[in-house]
Amino acid sequence: MIRTEDITRTEISDLGEFALIKHLTKEFEIKNDSTIKGVGDDAAVIDSKGKRTVVSTDMLIEGVDFDMTYTPLRHLGYKAVAVNLSDIAAMNAIPKQITVNIAVSNRYSVEALTELYAGIYLACQRYDVDLVGGDTSSSPAGMFISITAIGEVDSDKLVYRSGASVHDLICVSGDLGSAYSGLLVLEREKVTFKANPNYQPDLATFDYVIDRYLKPEPRMDIIKFLDQKGIVPTSMIDVSDGLASDVMQICEASSVGCEIYEEKIPIDYATTMVCSEFGKMLPVSNALNGGEDYELLFTIKQADYEKIKDSAEVHVIGHITEANMGMMLVTPQNTTIQLRAQGWTGKDDE
Amino acid sequence: MIRTEDITRTEISDLGEFALIKHLTKEFEIKNDSTIKGVGDDAAVIDSKGKRTVVSTDMLIEGVDFDMTYTPLRHLGYKAVAVNLSDIAAMNAIPKQITVNIAVSNRYSVEALTELYAGIYLACQRYDVDLVGGDTSSSPAGMFISITAIGEVDSDKLVYRSGASVHDLICVSGDLGSAYSGLLVLEREKVTFKANPNYQPDLATFDYVIDRYLKPEPRMDIIKFLDQKGIVPTSMIDVSDGLASDVMQICEASSVGCEIYEEKIPIDYATTMVCSEFGKMLPVSNALNGGEDYELLFTIKQADYEKIKDSAEVHVIGHITEANMGMMLVTPQNTTIQLRAQGWTGKDDE
Repeated sequence: MIRTEDITRTEISDLGEFALIKHLTKEFEIKNDSTIKGVGDDAAVIDSKGKRTVVSTDMLIEGVDFDMTYTPLRHLGYKAVAVNLSDIAAMNAIPKQITVNIAVSNRYSVEALTELYAGIYLACQRYDVDLVGGDTSSSPAGMFISITAIGEVDSDKLVYRSGASVHDLICVSGDLGSAYSGLLVLEREKVTFKANPNYQPDLATFDYVIDRYLKPEPRMDIIKFLDQKGIVPTSMIDVSDGLASDVMQICEASSVGCEIYEEKIPIDYATTMVCSEFGKMLPVSNALNGGEDYELLFTIKQADYEKIKDSAEVHVIGHITEANMGMMLVTPQNTTIQLRAQGWTGKDDE
Repeated sequence: MIRTEDITRTEISDLGEFALIKHLTKEFEIKNDSTIKGVGDDAAVIDSKGKRTVVSTDMLIEGVDFDMTYTPLRHLGYKAVAVNLSDIAAMNAIPKQITVNIAVSNRYSVEALTELYAGIYLACQRYDVDLVGGDTSSSPAGMFISITAIGEVDSDKLVYRSGASVHDLICVSGDLGSAYSGLLVLEREKVTFKANPNYQPDLATFDYVIDRYLKPEPRMDIIKFLDQKGIVPTSMIDVSDGLASDVMQICEASSVGCEIYEEKIPIDYATTMVCSEFGKMLPVSNALNGGEDYELLFTIKQADYEKIKDSAEVHVIGHITEANMGMMLVTPQNTTIQLRAQGWTGKDDE
């Protein structure tokens, strides 16, 4: 069981709000020319230099989006930033700034928040993003993280969900279903741990899928790859709710249909292993409905196929059809079944 | 006691996340040319046209920042937007877009959220602001509202907290202490109501102070007035934590001291009435330490005095001194006492 330890415990109330924010953000230096003013005034100041500014926001809630039993605070901070940067990537834009609002109950110490911010810092460092604002408040129960990410892109390179046309190829990066497989492993360990708190599991076999769930990476490398190849996708979305739901978002926004080839969906061996260990579970179901993979799902013109066909990280999984053809999954047996979005079960616990 | 009634109750889970956001945002139309794309993709798209973009974010938490016993949902939605727009105003900028993240427990119905969004809509309408993103999640307990506001300003009109110089005049808009007085009245009514749920108070006498607390207005009119008069303040902040704390923010950021004349601090008659009714309470204490007035506190060059001296809404309350003179309050008896920031008691309940 992964746990964070509080060796020293400083109460948040001992520091006060202003000192706390200063303490948490003192390591964050500004990296982008466009960031004129960061933390410390009523608002941050950004210079857009004639580019398009893109803005995305997301909230992560303890007990809904994450479970403290198996989520190290540092990973949580990293992931909270990563999922917002992933939305910026899905616009074909480069993230530049974030604001972070956090509310925590008095169960959390200053040391705990420092751990969380260490993860936020790591993500900012890795992706050259400036933290430019936000506050830390008290919550009656649990932890709430609300992040807004700001990015920029030349207006002619901006990609919406709505630009897919008939015959476009549907591509996805990396592999799908592994994050959800990681969650399944963590949930199983949690049950075992509750029954026997001395239980020390060997999770090494599951390292990959657990990392995929706990510490997703926004696929900025794919955005750079596409740019280098001179490709502007016709539509794009990040896979947060599962392939089925997200491809449907593209089809609905673009007023088109699609055919996805089941055997083309990239699934990692580790995902297959989890499914086989858990029994009665199809890897493709995790890919279609698991979600939280934060891979990029996009469509390109057929003319661009030559430019991506040798990439190990981009997989063509289908093509766009007329809207009246519906959204279909073609099985290895060549039968077509209608795609259904079951959504991300982790979020449907209302 | 102000209460909202749920005549019909639709469970949020009956609608689902996508349908809920569509339902809540369907009335919001785009008003600003700079808003290229609003709700409905991975991120919003903004065209800054060479101006500075300013970004501010704030979180309101049930039981910490607001009490549902006396906060109508429509007012809450309005206030959540208003306090963020106030931060944009404090940069001398014009707010253009907001994103709204909301988390609610299943105690709240779709009708309740619709009321909240009616208030958000009203604020957006009044201040010509576009809602461009955000999501609605479930919370294990209570309501959390996290809003990010984006504004724009010419780079030569941008105002920080840090620009005040010795001899500058310290000005404040409107009146101070009334919002906190309103909160005191509401808190007293809550106690009375708990003791006797059939109690129907006559709050008409306190209408002004209650409105100041429940439904603050960002002082965009002051920003326009300053612009018309050709004044760019040397520093500015909005009064959210109380005059004492906020003037200290300006002095610390600008490395200067100040003298504030107690008798120049604008206090409404209604605030004086509340203090007299509650006994042993000085109106000036509410002004100095109450907070949440969302007035603008700013400094101007002495040369600009002629331009503001006839305004009924702008009051000169003191001047900037050398840092080594400290931050002082001059009483009507001409004694000087050091300013202390006691902060906003409503937020220090950690």
